[in-house]
Amino acid sequence: MEQSYYAVIFTSVQTENTEGYAEMAEKMENLAKQQPGFMAIEHARNEIGITVSYWQTLESIKKWKANLDHMVAQKKGRDQWYSYYKVRICKVEREYAFTH
Amino acid sequence: MEQSYYAVIFTSVQTENTEGYAEMAEKMENLAKQQPGFMAIEHARNEIGITVSYWQTLESIKKWKANLDHMVAQKKGRDQWYSYYKVRICKVEREYAFTH
Repeated sequence: MEQSYYAVIFTSVQTENTEGYAEMAEKMENLAKQQPGFMAIEHARNEIGITVSYWQTLESIKKWKANLDHMVAQKKGRDQWYSYYKVRICKVEREYAFTH
Repeated sequence: MEQSYYAVIFTSVQTENTEGYAEMAEKMENLAKQQPGFMAIEHARNEIGITVSYWQTLESIKKWKANLDHMVAQKKGRDQWYSYYKVRICKVEREYAFTH
């Protein structure tokens, strides 16, 4: 790995009331992609949701967390869409990949 | 956070041939839980699969990777179940949670 980077692991459990969630999730993903330091985002959901976004620096993660539109989405998430979530900010120390 | 810990982010794309996968995944999850240093595991899949496991030390991750039964499962994964996967070993630097 040439340069260190960071992963934000967002694990969530949704409420029954997911109205408006899909639109907001798409909007936030598109907005995240425009932020300085953004590298990639991966998402999967069945019983729980796991979203992992990758960032060049801790500073870029901090700025994205404090983005005004993102803060509105976060509040809506707490008020309506999520019964639980956990955020872990991690430094990627090593990686390897397999392609068939 | 009282003590540092580590996350292994395993992102994967499956092949069409998932015969035997569910049984092996369950077996490996149960086996992982018995390893020294294991803390927790989270999983979600739709287009892609994301499994995140949490460990107390890098050493415990290394040992789990080298576990003989797990190595058999990894080989089967490369030969049959996965067209792609990526493993990222990360140090959890900060975390916070929300519960409604």
